[in-house]
Parts: sequence; C-alpha cells; structure tokens
Amino acid sequence: MCGTDAPNGANGASNGQSAAHFRSSPYQPVGDFLSNVGSFKIIESTLREGEQFANAYFDTETKIKIAKALDDFGVDYIELTSPAASEQSRRDCEAICKLGLKAKILTHVRCDMRDAKLAVETGVDGLDVVIGTSSFLREHSHGKDMAYIEKTAVEVIEYVKSKGLEVRFSSEDSFRSDLVDLLSLYRAVDKVGVHRVGIADTVGCASPRQVYDLVRTLRGVVSCDIETHFHDDTGCAIANAYCALEAGATHIDTSVLGIGERNGITPLGGLMARMIVTSPEYVKSKYKLHKLKELEDLVAEAVEINTPFNNPITGFCAFTHKAGIHAKAILNNPSTYEILNPADFGLTRYVHFASRLTGWNAVKTRVGQLGLDMTDDQVKECTAKIKALADVRPIAIDDADSIIRTFHLSLHEQNKLQTPALVEN
Amino acid sequence: MCGTDAPNGANGASNGQSAAHFRSSPYQPVGDFLSNVGSFKIIESTLREGEQFANAYFDTETKIKIAKALDDFGVDYIELTSPAASEQSRRDCEAICKLGLKAKILTHVRCDMRDAKLAVETGVDGLDVVIGTSSFLREHSHGKDMAYIEKTAVEVIEYVKSKGLEVRFSSEDSFRSDLVDLLSLYRAVDKVGVHRVGIADTVGCASPRQVYDLVRTLRGVVSCDIETHFHDDTGCAIANAYCALEAGATHIDTSVLGIGERNGITPLGGLMARMIVTSPEYVKSKYKLHKLKELEDLVAEAVEINTPFNNPITGFCAFTHKAGIHAKAILNNPSTYEILNPADFGLTRYVHFASRLTGWNAVKTRVGQLGLDMTDDQVKECTAKIKALADVRPIAIDDADSIIRTFHLSLHEQNKLQTPALVEN
Repeated sequence: MCGTDAPNGANGASNGQSAAHFRSSPYQPVGDFLSNVGSFKIIESTLREGEQFANAYFDTETKIKIAKALDDFGVDYIELTSPAASEQSRRDCEAICKLGLKAKILTHVRCDMRDAKLAVETGVDGLDVVIGTSSFLREHSHGKDMAYIEKTAVEVIEYVKSKGLEVRFSSEDSFRSDLVDLLSLYRAVDKVGVHRVGIADTVGCASPRQVYDLVRTLRGVVSCDIETHFHDDTGCAIANAYCALEAGATHIDTSVLGIGERNGITPLGGLMARMIVTSPEYVKSKYKLHKLKELEDLVAEAVEINTPFNNPITGFCAFTHKAGIHAKAILNNPSTYEILNPADFGLTRYVHFASRLTGWNAVKTRVGQLGLDMTDDQVKECTAKIKALADVRPIAIDDADSIIRTFHLSLHEQNKLQTPALVEN
Repeated sequence: MCGTDAPNGANGASNGQSAAHFRSSPYQPVGDFLSNVGSFKIIESTLREGEQFANAYFDTETKIKIAKALDDFGVDYIELTSPAASEQSRRDCEAICKLGLKAKILTHVRCDMRDAKLAVETGVDGLDVVIGTSSFLREHSHGKDMAYIEKTAVEVIEYVKSKGLEVRFSSEDSFRSDLVDLLSLYRAVDKVGVHRVGIADTVGCASPRQVYDLVRTLRGVVSCDIETHFHDDTGCAIANAYCALEAGATHIDTSVLGIGERNGITPLGGLMARMIVTSPEYVKSKYKLHKLKELEDLVAEAVEINTPFNNPITGFCAFTHKAGIHAKAILNNPSTYEILNPADFGLTRYVHFASRLTGWNAVKTRVGQLGLDMTDDQVKECTAKIKALADVRPIAIDDADSIIRTFHLSLHEQNKLQTPALVEN
C-alpha cells in the first residue's frame, strides 16, 4: 500500500524476515534497519517509460495483453502514459482501468492542473506527478522557478487527494538538482500528505553510493514512501535500485527488458535477479518467476527486439558453464558457480563440454549421459582428443559426441583383441 | 605500472586532477583520498574470460586481430587463456607476445607450479594466478585447505618473480570466502612482494556497498595494487567496478561487450560510459573512444552475437530521444537529457518525432530541417495531425514528413485563396 499506511516499510514486519535471512546468508552484511531489500514494491512502467523506447508502438490490444501479463506476474503497480499525450493514450488508460486487475493502475503526468484533471477522469487508482527540478531542465525545458514548482505541486497534490486518489510527486533529474531546493520541495509536499515522493535519475548519471546517500538523507526528511527511477546510460540502473532500497526507498520503477528513453531503465528481470539473491523468500513468494521469460518474449516481440545475449536470467547462456574448472565444480554442486538457481525461473543449466577449454570432469558426465562406460584415465585420453579437434575448428556437441563414441568403440575393439577367449565364450 | 611502482594510485599525482574534477562537477560528491576513479587501469580479458563465453571460438588470426584492436583502443593489459588449456592456447600466447604491443600481455593460470612454468615460457609480461577460496570451491573444486593454498601461492609467486615477471594473486569467489582467511592470505602474498592481489565476484552475487566495504578493508591490509573482477549475473558488474575504484582498487577486469562465463563480466564499453561521466579528462585522453563501436563489432562478429539493443553507448537507440518534453529540452540543450556526449564516441544523437508521444518542438525542428516555414500555431496544428495518425498505426519518418509537407502545402493554398491579388502581382 501507499505512504499513509506504511510510511517506512523498513520498520515493518517484513524486516524481521529479511534480517533473519541476512544472518543465514554467508555473503550478506548484517541487517540494517533502513533497508527495504526484503519488502519493496514494483511500479512497472513498460506501458509508460517503455512506450518512450524508440521501437515501441503499442496498440490497445498489445497494451492490454502486456498489462494482464504484468498483473499475472505480480507487480504492485502498472504505470501508463499520460492521457494528455494523445486521444488514444487517454482511451487506453480508461480501457486498462476497466480490466479489474489486482495491480493498481497509475498514470504519469506533468505537474499541471489540466493534465491532472484529464488523468483523474480516466479511472486510474493514482497519479505519478513529475516536474524537472535541475537547473538544466528549469532553464531549457519548462522555464519555471522553485517557488512556482512548489506552489503548483501543492495545488495538484491537494486536487488529486480531494478526488480520493493516490498521488506521487517526483522531481526529474534529481541528481543534478540543488540538494537544498530538492529537500525543501519534498518536505513541502510531504506536509500536504503526498503518498510518495520520487527520485529520478533521468539522465543515468548517478552512482550507487551517491544514490544511497541521497535516499538516506531524504528518508530523514519525509515520512511518506520513496519511489526511485533509474536510467541505465552508465550501466548502473539495477545496482542503483538496490542501493536505494538499502537506504530506505520503498518503490522501484522497472520496465520489461528495461525498455525506455535512450537505453532504458532498471529492467524487471534484472531486478529480480538482484533481489532473489538477497531476499529469496520474499521474491519467490510474491512474483511468478517462471513467467518471466514469457513476459519478456511478449514485450520483445511487441517492440521488435531480441533479448540481449547477456540478459540476466533469460540471456541464452545465463546458465551455461564452459571452462573446465567451472564445469567440474558445477557438476559436483551447482552453488559453486551459480548464485541463481535456473529452476526458480523454470529454466535449466547447461554444461558446455565441446570446446578447447573443457575438462575431463565435464566429458566424464557426458560419457555417462551417452550411457557409455570408461575409466577416468580413458576419459582423460578422450578429453585430449576433443581439445585437439577444438583447437583446429569450432566443434558442436555432435562432434564431441562422435569423438567420445569413436573412442569408446576403439576401446571396445582393443578389448576384443586383448581378450578373444572371453568374447568367444 | 604494477604494485612496486605505485602501490596505491589514490595517493599519487592523478588524484589531484580527479579531486579538481569533483569540485567542478555538479553531481559528484567531494573528493575522496581513497578513490581511483580518475586513475584506474584496465585488464582486458576478452581473450581469456571472453573465450569462456558459450559462443566463443577464437582461431589464432581472430585472437591477433582482437589483441591489436584492444591495444589500439588503449587498454593497459591484455589477458590470455592459460597455455595449459590446450596446445593451440599455448602457441597463441607465444604469437601474441611476439606482436610487440604497447599493452602488457598476461596469462591467467591456476595456482599450480606446472601451469606457472608453462606460462613463464610463453614470453608473457606477467601471470594472473588464481585459486578458489570459498568453502564451496574448496570442497567441490580443488579440495585444498587454506594452509595449502597459502604455501602454494607463496611458492608460485616467488617463482614468477624470480623470472622477472609481474604476478597477481587472486582468490576466486571472494565474496563467499571467509573474510579472515581471505585477509590473512592476501597479507601473506603481499609480504612476499606480489604485484597485485585480486578480488573476484566469480558468481556475480556482490552488491555495490559490499564491494566498497571489502575493497576498503583490503586497502588497509595490503600495500600492493588491487585488481577486481565482477560477473554480471545480478546486473551489478559495472556498478561494482565503480565502487571498487572508489574504495581504492587500481585495476578493473573487462571484456568487450562483457562476454564471459554465463552472462559475462564488466563490459569495456559500459565501464567507459560510467567512467567518462566521473573522469572525462582521464578517460578521453587515455582511450580511443571513437574506436569503441568498431572494437565491439569485431568481437560481436567473431562470437556471432548482436550488440544488445540496450548496450551503453552503442545500443542502437542509446542517443535517441522520443517523448515530447525530452525532445524539446534536448533541442534547446543536449545536456538536459544526455549525460554522455555521442560525439565523444564518434556517434550522433537522433530526436524521434514520428510517434504519438512527440511534441511540437520536435516537429518544429523537423519543419526547419525540411526547409519549410510555419508559425508556432501552425506547427502545433500539424503536430496534432501527426499524433492522430500515430494513434492509429506505427508511423515512419516518411509518414510524418508527408503529413508535414501536405499540411504546409494546404497552408500555401489557403494563402493563395485568401490573397489572390498578391499572388497575381
């Protein structure tokens, strides 16, 4: 729920669970009373930020399909493009509100009374109100000063609240805004009862410890919830979301595959990968992780992109192990080289054995899979043959299997020659 | 250079430059004496970690092409697969050492005297020695205890040093290793004069503040350089590298496009994106950034992958602006919504105007590009027509241009009807 119910989830019941988890986990620091890593909420913005992706064109049918899939996955909020953007955007807002989803429906509007009025009439559960606060945006975008921003913000917030809806107020380009201006503004909107304040790294410049510091400072200034929005221009969008939660943020904006302006924002799947390591019980009980790949495929197809080869969890080789020492250990115990369990996402691991980097333990496993029988010394000899061919050209599984079978056959024939009497009997 | 020359770059001359930069930058905290964000070195591991990528098969010719391109780009070190991996791996090591590159050539070997001897004979400048130290790896991989690891490490390090080569000693899976064991081991190898110690997040579980804490602790224990290696399973590999530098690490492992085991490690391009924001002078003077795309294309082709749509810097839409308010501000001043300047990488920005999210400022710019003339009110009317069509179906630039031209023509014709006398004169 929103700020009025649980202004700081860090102090709520879920923290006990996450603290307990911290103690049982060998690679986590001790619990922190500020942290919400075990009690965060997702504001899923594929249908708002994602629509700003260069390739995105969502017709009504596609929007509804995506909204239903997000709802089924278990996100807390679905954020939609402003009804002020176009007539169809307004009608799509209304249509999605009528679906009766479990997720709350938000729309993202400029801090402007006309936009707010239009939004309230669509039937949404809440408004995400935004305005640029950096000197860059104040000078080159809307041209307003901080006094004007504060006055308008309070008006819009009071109006939305008077209609019984949830309201968030966010600055844009927060990390290039004046800190004192920013805190004054947030304190003012907190006083009039805004449900959430938002911090946005609109240009993707923020670094993790900077995020931690700003959110932690803000946590001491406002009593409402804190939402955060991170662009990925410098590759830190997942890490920044994580550090924001550590510092007391309550809500994270995501989009499927991270699609958005430029190279996008914190991806839903990548955030799941990060959070399941820290808070496995919370993440597994709340989100239908085995639906992640299907959800990503739906959006990838709608915007005509390929899932990146290196996508967390669903990249084609996210659970492929190749080097000999990795393969050996993985075959003994997958936790050695896997922090994520592919089964949690309905996926499987693959141990690569057809390369020059392979080791005899991987080949031994393959020999077993093929139903053949060899001593360790024989497997080592066979491994040398695979490496020798892989030195000459790329080899496929078929090639490696063929080497194994041929080698096995030759062993069998040697055996026949050495023990003719036994064979004849 | 290595540890003996500059055990802690944070205290060296380059820090003054980076501190000065901090002061002039509006979104950076004040300088930190530990930080090496303005004086880091890159150990480029496309030809080692990258060879462990599922799709990688590098023949000698490809390896040489990639090594030359990396050297030309300006990386400090190039790390190669162990000569113990296969006979061809050994010969490739020798061949690359003979190229006479500016970058130092390293090879990555197990902490084992046989591997070390084989490596020393290839002509490399140094050895990156590695052994697993987590209980997971000690139990399921090599089966050795910490006393054995320390004894072997010291032997191998002393041997490599006796040959006049540079040597790094790294634990594997450092973030799941016992902290006291780890620090004892690093102190021991530091005492015998290792040039660098390495921290490796082999499974990709580490979070940024955890990295900062471990590196900062280690910085107080050893006087040699600190190298770090981050896998990207939970999407934090770039952020973790950045936090490691903030805490006093001196060297970062990268690969082109991040290719490596599973979904890979800190990508070279992504790290450039992060570092140019913090230390523009250092990054621009040291690396040939306009060669980044060519380098990535070379590797992508060699391993048969597409550059991810959301790749930092070189993703196809990394500099595309779509939403109306973004486009308006970008046209006034690119710094409003860009923290990276595409020109630094030999690339250009694109302002998208053919969508329902477009604004009249973007359309006005396009009208100018087409050599047409309209008043602001006319541009707004024309923008509404573009939005209306984009509500019905996805539109291309041609479609939008066609609407603009048709609208302009109709204005011209209205004009003719309204002022026949003028036209006839």
